[in-house]
Amino acid sequence: MAFYYPNGQLFSQKNPREPSYKRETTFANRGMRFEEAINQSNEYYITHDKAVVHKKPTPLQIVKVDYPKRSAAVIREAYFRQPSTTDYNGVYRGYYLDFEAKETKNKTSFPLKNFHQHQITHMEQCLKQEAVCFVLLWFSSLNRCFFLSAEKMITYWQEQETGRKSIPLEIIESVGIEITPQIAPRIPYLTAVEQYLEKRS
Amino acid sequence: MAFYYPNGQLFSQKNPREPSYKRETTFANRGMRFEEAINQSNEYYITHDKAVVHKKPTPLQIVKVDYPKRSAAVIREAYFRQPSTTDYNGVYRGYYLDFEAKETKNKTSFPLKNFHQHQITHMEQCLKQEAVCFVLLWFSSLNRCFFLSAEKMITYWQEQETGRKSIPLEIIESVGIEITPQIAPRIPYLTAVEQYLEKRS
Repeated sequence: MAFYYPNGQLFSQKNPREPSYKRETTFANRGMRFEEAINQSNEYYITHDKAVVHKKPTPLQIVKVDYPKRSAAVIREAYFRQPSTTDYNGVYRGYYLDFEAKETKNKTSFPLKNFHQHQITHMEQCLKQEAVCFVLLWFSSLNRCFFLSAEKMITYWQEQETGRKSIPLEIIESVGIEITPQIAPRIPYLTAVEQYLEKRS
Repeated sequence: MAFYYPNGQLFSQKNPREPSYKRETTFANRGMRFEEAINQSNEYYITHDKAVVHKKPTPLQIVKVDYPKRSAAVIREAYFRQPSTTDYNGVYRGYYLDFEAKETKNKTSFPLKNFHQHQITHMEQCLKQEAVCFVLLWFSSLNRCFFLSAEKMITYWQEQETGRKSIPLEIIESVGIEITPQIAPRIPYLTAVEQYLEKRS
Protein backbone atom coordinates (compact mmCIF):
# COMPACT_ATOMS: atom_id res chain seq x y z
CA MET A 1 0.00 0.00 0.00
CA ALA A 2 1.23 3.50 -0.70
CA PHE A 3 0.06 6.91 0.45
CA TYR A 4 0.82 10.42 -0.45
CA TYR A 5 1.17 12.83 2.38
CA PRO A 6 -0.73 16.00 1.59
CA ASN A 7 2.64 17.64 0.96
CA GLY A 8 3.03 15.37 -2.03
CA GLN A 9 5.67 13.06 -0.52
CA LEU A 10 5.13 9.38 -1.05
CA PHE A 11 4.73 6.99 1.85
CA SER A 12 5.01 3.41 0.73
CA GLN A 13 5.20 0.32 2.87
CA LYS A 14 5.35 -3.30 1.94
CA ASN A 15 4.51 -6.12 4.27
CA PRO A 16 7.05 -8.91 4.12
CA ARG A 17 4.54 -11.31 5.63
CA GLU A 18 2.06 -10.77 2.87
CA PRO A 19 3.54 -11.39 -0.56
CA SER A 20 0.19 -10.99 -2.31
CA TYR A 21 0.36 -7.39 -1.25
CA LYS A 22 2.97 -6.53 -3.84
CA ARG A 23 0.50 -6.31 -6.67
CA GLU A 24 -1.59 -3.81 -4.75
CA THR A 25 1.47 -1.70 -3.98
CA THR A 26 2.31 -1.49 -7.65
CA PHE A 27 -1.24 -0.53 -8.47
CA ALA A 28 -1.36 2.14 -5.81
CA ASN A 29 1.93 3.63 -6.94
CA ARG A 30 0.77 3.66 -10.50
CA GLY A 31 -2.40 5.53 -9.57
CA MET A 32 -0.41 7.88 -7.40
CA ARG A 33 1.65 9.28 -10.26
CA PHE A 34 -1.48 10.53 -12.00
CA GLU A 35 -2.87 11.75 -8.69
CA GLU A 36 0.34 13.69 -8.12
CA ALA A 37 -0.01 15.34 -11.53
CA ILE A 38 -3.57 16.39 -10.62
CA ASN A 39 -2.47 17.70 -7.22
CA GLN A 40 0.27 19.75 -8.82
CA SER A 41 -2.19 21.09 -11.38
CA ASN A 42 -4.51 22.12 -8.54
CA GLU A 43 -1.61 23.90 -6.87
CA TYR A 44 -0.86 25.70 -10.13
CA TYR A 45 -4.48 26.76 -10.51
CA ILE A 46 -4.69 28.07 -6.93
CA THR A 47 -1.39 29.95 -7.20
CA HIS A 48 -2.52 31.58 -10.45
CA ASP A 49 -6.02 32.45 -9.14
CA LYS A 50 -7.63 30.21 -11.76
CA ALA A 51 -9.57 27.85 -9.48
CA VAL A 52 -9.58 26.53 -5.91
CA VAL A 53 -9.63 22.74 -6.01
CA HIS A 54 -8.30 20.39 -3.32
CA LYS A 55 -8.07 16.66 -2.90
CA LYS A 56 -10.09 15.53 0.09
CA PRO A 57 -8.11 13.80 2.83
CA THR A 58 -8.59 10.04 3.17
CA PRO A 59 -11.24 9.45 5.82
CA LEU A 60 -9.95 7.43 8.76
CA GLN A 61 -11.70 5.93 11.73
CA ILE A 62 -9.60 6.85 14.74
CA VAL A 63 -9.73 4.37 17.60
CA LYS A 64 -6.76 5.13 19.85
CA VAL A 65 -4.73 8.29 20.40
CA ASP A 66 -1.74 8.75 22.68
CA TYR A 67 -0.84 12.11 24.17
CA PRO A 68 2.88 11.94 24.96
CA LYS A 69 4.16 14.58 27.37
CA ARG A 70 5.48 17.67 25.64
CA SER A 71 4.85 16.38 22.13
CA ALA A 72 2.10 16.06 19.54
CA ALA A 73 -0.80 13.62 19.85
CA VAL A 74 -0.02 10.29 18.15
CA ILE A 75 -2.73 8.20 16.57
CA ARG A 76 -1.97 4.60 17.54
CA GLU A 77 -4.93 2.81 16.02
CA ALA A 78 -6.98 3.88 13.04
CA TYR A 79 -8.59 2.28 10.02
CA PHE A 80 -9.26 3.37 6.47
CA ARG A 81 -12.87 4.25 5.82
CA GLN A 82 -14.86 4.23 2.60
CA PRO A 83 -15.22 7.83 1.39
CA SER A 84 -18.75 9.04 0.67
CA THR A 85 -17.76 11.47 -2.08
CA THR A 86 -15.36 11.79 -4.98
CA ASP A 87 -11.75 12.77 -4.30
CA TYR A 88 -11.68 16.32 -5.67
CA ASN A 89 -13.93 19.34 -5.42
CA GLY A 90 -13.68 23.09 -5.54
CA VAL A 91 -14.73 26.27 -7.30
CA TYR A 92 -13.97 27.76 -10.71
CA ARG A 93 -15.49 31.09 -11.80
CA GLY A 94 -18.53 30.47 -9.60
CA TYR A 95 -18.97 26.88 -10.79
CA TYR A 96 -18.82 24.01 -8.36
CA LEU A 97 -16.38 21.42 -9.71
CA ASP A 98 -16.43 17.82 -8.53
CA PHE A 99 -14.41 14.99 -9.99
CA GLU A 100 -12.64 11.69 -9.62
CA ALA A 101 -9.30 10.86 -11.27
CA LYS A 102 -8.65 7.29 -12.42
CA GLU A 103 -5.94 5.47 -14.28
CA THR A 104 -5.62 2.29 -16.34
CA LYS A 105 -2.81 0.39 -18.03
CA ASN A 106 -5.30 -0.86 -20.63
CA LYS A 107 -4.83 0.43 -24.15
CA THR A 108 -8.24 -0.08 -25.68
CA SER A 109 -10.82 0.54 -22.95
CA PHE A 110 -11.33 1.91 -19.43
CA PRO A 111 -12.50 -0.79 -16.96
CA LEU A 112 -15.57 0.21 -14.94
CA LYS A 113 -14.21 -1.67 -11.91
CA ASN A 114 -12.04 1.40 -11.29
CA PHE A 115 -15.17 3.15 -10.02
CA HIS A 116 -17.32 2.55 -6.97
CA GLN A 117 -21.04 2.91 -6.43
CA HIS A 118 -20.56 5.63 -3.77
CA GLN A 119 -18.74 7.80 -6.31
CA ILE A 120 -21.52 7.39 -8.86
CA THR A 121 -24.21 8.13 -6.25
CA HIS A 122 -22.33 11.26 -5.19
CA MET A 123 -22.07 12.39 -8.83
CA GLU A 124 -25.81 11.89 -9.29
CA GLN A 125 -26.51 13.99 -6.19
CA CYS A 126 -24.16 16.72 -7.41
CA LEU A 127 -25.72 16.83 -10.90
CA LYS A 128 -29.12 17.48 -9.30
CA GLN A 129 -27.50 20.61 -7.83
CA GLU A 130 -26.16 21.69 -11.23
CA ALA A 131 -22.57 20.83 -10.38
CA VAL A 132 -19.87 20.54 -13.02
CA CYS A 133 -19.11 16.91 -12.40
CA PHE A 134 -16.74 14.68 -14.32
CA VAL A 135 -14.03 12.04 -14.30
CA LEU A 136 -10.46 12.36 -15.51
CA LEU A 137 -9.35 9.16 -17.21
CA TRP A 138 -5.66 8.44 -17.65
CA PHE A 139 -4.45 5.76 -20.07
CA SER A 140 -0.95 5.37 -18.66
CA SER A 141 0.30 3.11 -21.48
CA LEU A 142 -0.89 5.58 -24.09
CA ASN A 143 -0.01 8.75 -22.16
CA ARG A 144 -3.48 10.08 -22.95
CA CYS A 145 -5.90 11.85 -20.63
CA PHE A 146 -9.63 12.43 -21.11
CA PHE A 147 -12.35 14.47 -19.48
CA LEU A 148 -15.61 12.51 -19.38
CA SER A 149 -18.72 14.24 -18.02
CA ALA A 150 -20.51 12.58 -15.10
CA GLU A 151 -23.66 12.50 -17.24
CA LYS A 152 -21.91 10.18 -19.73
CA MET A 153 -20.01 8.29 -17.04
CA ILE A 154 -23.26 7.44 -15.22
CA THR A 155 -24.80 6.17 -18.46
CA TYR A 156 -21.94 3.71 -19.04
CA TRP A 157 -21.95 2.73 -15.36
CA GLN A 158 -25.62 1.81 -15.60
CA GLU A 159 -24.96 -0.28 -18.71
CA GLN A 160 -23.18 -2.76 -16.45
CA GLU A 161 -26.65 -4.20 -15.92
CA THR A 162 -26.62 -5.26 -19.55
CA GLY A 163 -23.09 -6.65 -19.34
CA ARG A 164 -20.83 -3.65 -19.97
CA LYS A 165 -17.45 -4.15 -18.28
CA SER A 166 -15.56 -1.14 -19.63
CA ILE A 167 -15.77 1.98 -21.79
CA PRO A 168 -14.00 1.49 -25.14
CA LEU A 169 -11.36 4.08 -26.00
CA GLU A 170 -13.22 4.92 -29.25
CA ILE A 171 -16.27 5.96 -27.23
CA ILE A 172 -14.13 8.04 -24.87
CA GLU A 173 -12.43 9.68 -27.87
CA SER A 174 -15.78 10.58 -29.35
CA VAL A 175 -17.81 11.69 -26.27
CA GLY A 176 -14.97 12.82 -23.99
CA ILE A 177 -12.61 15.78 -24.26
CA GLU A 178 -8.92 14.98 -24.62
CA ILE A 179 -6.53 16.84 -22.32
CA THR A 180 -2.95 17.10 -23.52
CA PRO A 181 -0.47 16.95 -20.63
CA GLN A 182 1.76 20.00 -20.30
CA ILE A 183 4.61 21.26 -18.19
CA ALA A 184 2.39 23.48 -16.03
CA PRO A 185 -0.32 22.81 -15.21
CA ARG A 186 0.56 19.19 -15.89
CA ILE A 187 -3.07 18.21 -16.51
CA PRO A 188 -4.80 21.39 -17.79
CA TYR A 189 -8.29 20.10 -17.02
CA LEU A 190 -9.86 23.59 -16.83
CA THR A 191 -9.57 23.81 -20.62
CA ALA A 192 -11.83 20.76 -20.87
CA VAL A 193 -14.17 22.22 -18.24
CA GLU A 194 -14.49 25.36 -20.37
CA GLN A 195 -15.33 23.30 -23.46
CA TYR A 196 -17.88 21.33 -21.48
CA LEU A 197 -19.49 24.53 -20.16
CA GLU A 198 -19.72 26.01 -23.68
CA LYS A 199 -21.48 22.90 -24.94
CA ARG A 200 -23.79 22.77 -21.91
CA SER A 201 -25.00 26.37 -22.20
CA MET B 1 -9.56 15.07 22.73
CA ALA B 2 -12.73 13.99 21.07
CA PHE B 3 -13.54 12.98 17.52
CA TYR B 4 -16.64 12.24 15.63
CA TYR B 5 -16.53 9.28 13.33
CA PRO B 6 -18.09 10.18 9.99
CA ASN B 7 -21.08 8.07 11.05
CA GLY B 8 -21.77 10.65 13.74
CA GLN B 9 -20.63 8.55 16.69
CA LEU B 10 -18.44 10.27 19.24
CA PHE B 11 -14.97 9.03 20.03
CA SER B 12 -13.58 10.64 23.14
CA GLN B 13 -10.43 9.80 24.98
CA LYS B 14 -8.82 11.37 27.98
CA ASN B 15 -5.23 10.90 28.93
CA PRO B 16 -4.82 10.19 32.64
CA ARG B 17 -1.16 11.24 32.46
CA GLU B 18 -1.95 14.68 31.20
CA PRO B 19 -4.42 16.50 33.43
CA SER B 20 -4.06 19.74 31.46
CA TYR B 21 -5.70 17.92 28.62
CA LYS B 22 -9.06 17.99 30.29
CA ARG B 23 -9.76 21.57 29.30
CA GLU B 24 -9.13 20.73 25.68
CA THR B 25 -11.43 17.72 25.89
CA THR B 26 -14.21 19.91 27.19
CA PHE B 27 -13.63 22.44 24.45
CA ALA B 28 -13.60 19.79 21.77
CA ASN B 29 -16.81 18.25 23.04
CA ARG B 30 -18.44 21.64 23.19
CA GLY B 31 -17.49 22.38 19.60
CA MET B 32 -18.54 18.91 18.54
CA ARG B 33 -22.17 19.38 19.53
CA PHE B 34 -22.53 22.26 17.07
CA GLU B 35 -20.55 20.34 14.48
CA GLU B 36 -22.91 17.40 14.93
CA ALA B 37 -25.89 19.69 14.34
CA ILE B 38 -24.28 20.91 11.10
CA ASN B 39 -23.47 17.37 9.98
CA GLN B 40 -27.06 16.29 10.59
CA SER B 41 -28.31 19.33 8.69
CA ASN B 42 -26.06 18.37 5.77
CA GLU B 43 -27.48 14.87 5.86
CA TYR B 44 -31.00 16.31 5.83
CA TYR B 45 -30.17 18.53 2.86
CA ILE B 46 -28.65 15.65 0.87
CA THR B 47 -31.53 13.31 1.63
CA HIS B 48 -34.04 15.96 0.52
CA ASP B 49 -32.07 16.90 -2.64
CA LYS B 50 -31.58 20.45 -1.35
CA ALA B 51 -27.78 20.60 -1.40
CA VAL B 52 -24.72 18.35 -1.32
CA VAL B 53 -22.41 19.48 1.48
CA HIS B 54 -19.92 17.33 3.36
CA LYS B 55 -17.46 17.92 6.15
CA LYS B 56 -13.93 17.26 4.98
CA PRO B 57 -12.08 14.50 6.82
CA THR B 58 -9.33 15.58 9.21
CA PRO B 59 -6.03 15.41 7.34
CA LEU B 60 -3.57 13.00 8.92
CA GLN B 61 0.04 12.27 8.23
CA ILE B 62 0.35 8.50 8.14
CA VAL B 63 3.72 7.14 9.22
CA LYS B 64 3.24 3.44 9.95
CA VAL B 65 0.66 0.94 8.74
CA ASP B 66 0.36 -2.72 9.72
CA TYR B 67 -1.19 -5.28 7.43
CA PRO B 68 -2.41 -8.11 9.66
CA LYS B 69 -3.14 -11.38 7.89
CA ARG B 70 -6.77 -11.75 6.86
CA SER B 71 -7.87 -8.42 8.30
CA ALA B 72 -7.95 -4.74 7.48
CA ALA B 73 -4.85 -2.53 7.41
CA VAL B 74 -4.25 -0.84 10.77
CA ILE B 75 -2.65 2.58 11.01
CA ARG B 76 -0.20 2.37 13.92
CA GLU B 77 1.36 5.82 13.77
CA ALA B 78 -0.17 8.97 12.39
CA TYR B 79 -0.31 12.65 13.29
CA PHE B 80 -2.87 15.40 12.93
CA ARG B 81 -2.07 17.84 10.17
CA GLN B 82 -3.14 21.44 9.71
CA PRO B 83 -5.93 21.56 7.12
CA SER B 84 -5.43 23.95 4.20
CA THR B 85 -9.12 24.71 3.71
CA THR B 86 -12.28 25.28 5.69
CA ASP B 87 -14.19 22.28 7.06
CA TYR B 88 -17.26 22.29 4.83
CA ASN B 89 -17.91 22.65 1.13
CA GLY B 90 -20.40 21.54 -1.45
CA VAL B 91 -22.97 22.62 -4.00
CA TYR B 92 -26.39 24.25 -3.78
CA ARG B 93 -28.39 25.08 -6.93
CA GLY B 94 -25.20 25.49 -8.93
CA TYR B 95 -23.52 27.63 -6.25
CA TYR B 96 -20.29 26.53 -4.66
CA LEU B 97 -20.71 26.74 -0.88
CA ASP B 98 -17.73 26.90 1.46
CA PHE B 99 -17.87 27.51 5.17
CA GLU B 100 -16.44 27.06 8.61
CA ALA B 101 -18.55 26.45 11.74
CA LYS B 102 -17.37 27.89 15.05
CA GLU B 103 -18.70 28.08 18.56
CA THR B 104 -18.19 30.28 21.62
CA LYS B 105 -19.40 30.28 25.21
CA ASN B 106 -19.10 34.09 25.22
CA LYS B 107 -22.33 36.04 25.43
CA THR B 108 -21.35 39.43 24.05
CA SER B 109 -18.79 38.82 21.29
CA PHE B 110 -17.18 36.19 19.10
CA PRO B 111 -13.42 35.82 19.73
CA LEU B 112 -11.30 35.94 16.58
CA LYS B 113 -8.89 33.39 18.07
CA ASN B 114 -11.42 30.74 17.00
CA PHE B 115 -10.22 31.27 13.44
CA HIS B 116 -6.91 30.52 11.77
CA GLN B 117 -5.02 32.29 9.01
CA HIS B 118 -5.26 29.29 6.65
CA GLN B 119 -9.06 29.45 6.84
CA ILE B 120 -9.08 33.16 6.03
CA THR B 121 -6.63 32.67 3.15
CA HIS B 122 -8.78 29.87 1.75
CA MET B 123 -11.89 32.09 1.98
CA GLU B 124 -10.09 34.88 0.12
CA GLN B 125 -9.10 32.44 -2.64
CA CYS B 126 -12.67 31.14 -2.87
CA LEU B 127 -14.17 34.63 -3.06
CA LYS B 128 -11.97 35.38 -6.06
CA GLN B 129 -13.74 32.43 -7.73
CA GLU B 130 -17.19 33.82 -6.83
CA ALA B 131 -17.81 31.20 -4.15
CA VAL B 132 -20.59 31.58 -1.60
CA CYS B 133 -18.32 31.66 1.40
CA PHE B 134 -19.28 32.23 5.02
CA VAL B 135 -18.93 31.27 8.67
CA LEU B 136 -21.59 29.88 10.96
CA LEU B 137 -21.20 31.32 14.45
CA TRP B 138 -22.79 29.57 17.40
CA PHE B 139 -23.23 31.35 20.73
CA SER B 140 -23.77 28.26 22.87
CA SER B 141 -24.72 30.18 26.02
CA LEU B 142 -27.32 32.16 24.11
CA ASN B 143 -28.49 29.33 21.85
CA ARG B 144 -28.16 31.70 18.89
CA CYS B 145 -26.64 30.98 15.47
CA PHE B 146 -25.53 33.48 12.82
CA PHE B 147 -24.46 33.40 9.20
CA LEU B 148 -21.65 35.87 8.58
CA SER B 149 -20.39 36.30 5.01
CA ALA B 150 -16.68 35.71 4.39
CA GLU B 151 -16.48 39.26 3.00
CA LYS B 152 -17.45 40.65 6.44
CA MET B 153 -15.48 38.02 8.34
CA ILE B 154 -12.28 38.90 6.48
CA THR B 155 -12.79 42.59 7.26
CA TYR B 156 -12.99 41.94 11.01
CA TRP B 157 -10.09 39.49 10.82
CA GLN B 158 -7.92 42.18 9.24
CA GLU B 159 -8.90 44.66 11.97
CA GLN B 160 -6.80 42.55 14.35
CA GLU B 161 -3.93 44.70 13.10
CA THR B 162 -5.57 47.66 14.82
CA GLY B 163 -6.27 45.71 18.00
CA ARG B 164 -9.57 43.95 17.36
CA LYS B 165 -9.82 40.76 19.44
CA SER B 166 -13.41 39.77 18.73
CA ILE B 167 -16.59 40.64 16.83
CA PRO B 168 -19.23 42.14 19.15
CA LEU B 169 -22.63 40.44 19.11
CA GLU B 170 -24.31 43.75 18.12
CA ILE B 171 -22.22 43.87 14.94
CA ILE B 172 -23.05 40.24 14.17
CA GLU B 173 -26.74 40.94 14.78
CA SER B 174 -26.63 43.85 12.37
CA VAL B 175 -24.42 42.53 9.52
CA GLY B 176 -25.04 38.78 9.90
CA ILE B 177 -28.16 36.71 9.26
CA GLU B 178 -29.64 34.93 12.27
CA ILE B 179 -30.48 31.24 11.83
CA THR B 180 -33.10 29.87 14.19
CA PRO B 181 -32.38 26.23 15.13
CA GLN B 182 -35.12 23.79 14.20
CA ILE B 183 -35.94 20.12 14.55
CA ALA B 184 -34.86 19.29 10.97
CA PRO B 185 -32.66 20.52 9.55
CA ARG B 186 -31.26 21.48 12.94
CA ILE B 187 -29.32 24.46 11.54
CA PRO B 188 -31.26 25.58 8.43
CA TYR B 189 -28.34 27.52 6.99
CA LEU B 190 -29.61 27.39 3.40
CA THR B 191 -32.27 29.94 4.36
CA ALA B 192 -29.47 32.36 5.25
CA VAL B 193 -27.60 31.45 2.04
CA GLU B 194 -30.75 32.36 0.06
CA GLN B 195 -31.01 35.73 1.83
CA TYR B 196 -27.33 36.38 1.18
CA LEU B 197 -27.73 35.51 -2.53
CA GLU B 198 -30.74 37.84 -2.88
CA LYS B 199 -28.79 40.71 -1.38
CA ARG B 200 -25.71 39.94 -3.51
CA SER B 201 -27.52 39.89 -6.84
